[in-house]
Amino acid sequence: MRTAFYISDGTALTSEAFGHAMLSLFPMKFKHRTLPFIDSAEKATRCCQQINAAASEDGEKPLIFHTFVNTEIKHIINQSQGISYDFLDHYVEPMEAELGIKAQPKTNRTHGIHQDYNFRIDAVNYTLDNDDGVSTKEYGQADIILIGASRTGKTPTCLYLALQYGIKAANYPITEDDLDNLQLSYDLKMHRHKLFGLTIDVERLQSIRQERRANSRYASLEQCQLEINQIEHLFRQEAIPFLNSTHASVEELAAKIMDEAKLERHRY
Amino acid sequence: MRTAFYISDGTALTSEAFGHAMLSLFPMKFKHRTLPFIDSAEKATRCCQQINAAASEDGEKPLIFHTFVNTEIKHIINQSQGISYDFLDHYVEPMEAELGIKAQPKTNRTHGIHQDYNFRIDAVNYTLDNDDGVSTKEYGQADIILIGASRTGKTPTCLYLALQYGIKAANYPITEDDLDNLQLSYDLKMHRHKLFGLTIDVERLQSIRQERRANSRYASLEQCQLEINQIEHLFRQEAIPFLNSTHASVEELAAKIMDEAKLERHRY
Repeated sequence: MRTAFYISDGTALTSEAFGHAMLSLFPMKFKHRTLPFIDSAEKATRCCQQINAAASEDGEKPLIFHTFVNTEIKHIINQSQGISYDFLDHYVEPMEAELGIKAQPKTNRTHGIHQDYNFRIDAVNYTLDNDDGVSTKEYGQADIILIGASRTGKTPTCLYLALQYGIKAANYPITEDDLDNLQLSYDLKMHRHKLFGLTIDVERLQSIRQERRANSRYASLEQCQLEINQIEHLFRQEAIPFLNSTHASVEELAAKIMDEAKLERHRY
Repeated sequence: MRTAFYISDGTALTSEAFGHAMLSLFPMKFKHRTLPFIDSAEKATRCCQQINAAASEDGEKPLIFHTFVNTEIKHIINQSQGISYDFLDHYVEPMEAELGIKAQPKTNRTHGIHQDYNFRIDAVNYTLDNDDGVSTKEYGQADIILIGASRTGKTPTCLYLALQYGIKAANYPITEDDLDNLQLSYDLKMHRHKLFGLTIDVERLQSIRQERRANSRYASLEQCQLEINQIEHLFRQEAIPFLNSTHASVEELAAKIMDEAKLERHRY
């Protein structure tokens, strides 16, 4: 199996994103190695040794996804036995021509601390303080409030919204108490323009709940079915937008919610 | 100000990562618009209208960062008044030649649900269950345990480790009780090979604590100084690796911890 290297003078998150997008086009398996914070000739030389060792071991040339501002480091990496794919190379010149200014590359600028940074940390703190319906007092500050049955993916989605986009995302689990009268509680009604629902296929919900509390009423197919039916009915009755989380990753759920609820990114 | 569009048939996370990396090379400001889930000719046509509207409003051609598997959608987007930068285009052919197979593009493959997915959600649940020292019983399952004074960035870093890399990251705040005898507690000693420290500049810590509990002893410069001195002393005495979070984003802290603690990614 061939090895793919993701190399950067910073976190390597962009190299990983680019490399994964490229490799996903090919129906092959790869070994993956990320080498972040390669910011000196010495470290670059050690990278080369790792790349060359992988080349010998695999009997195939490793693929290298990188971009380096520092030409000395780039030169060292390019002398390894791997095949380099520099994901900015091709675009710098045409973009310089279009923008009418020269590129001024700086080291590790992509994932450092920007102005928006405190905003994101505040959003994470908000989301943790307003997880799982523990409190509804701060819903006035929420950008969005996810609601749905227990174990439909509300918490991870909220955390992703906070970390990736700086969104203050509260979440509220709809329980049997709420379902008794099939209405939104007063606290939720007050903020109904911020509500967004999550639902899930009943079989999937049962299997997740079974892992948490095996053989409980909570994890029974009957109970899951009842809750999902009633909650989806509530979403429709109250015209609350909702998504099914069964086949969606947190990235997809978060991006869809951003899009459908027209939330503004605080991440740039 | 020129507008940058990030467009995709999926989450647009990769388009954003690529576009941000490109634009960070240029000392200019841009407006940013993300248009995810553009998976039909109709939606692509609406994108074009938005791009053309931005062109008129800005008086300058928008920049478009995208990649599309569907050639019809790509064609529609490329007919807008924006300048398209397709971040995979240049690389597909050389990579096909190197790998000896044809690319088989599939829609939205990058950020969907992979095998690793449950692993990441499990890691998020673990991290929440083991946040802020609430319990030390499950430290046996931890991949890493972050320790440090209150408000040094442990929780957001743990959540990022869990969401991005599928790492089970517990965290434990070192408090005055722990500092009294300047030793690691028994629970931490038991897992000392998993410990990783976070510290922070005293002035920064004071300002963060001041926002949480204004004018408390907890937020006093004296108290912050005392805690940081003693905790850094403890890290050195016990040979616990540690990082200073003052000028680092959660992405950087997480990537550095992955690297220094040689943690294995569960994300591919």
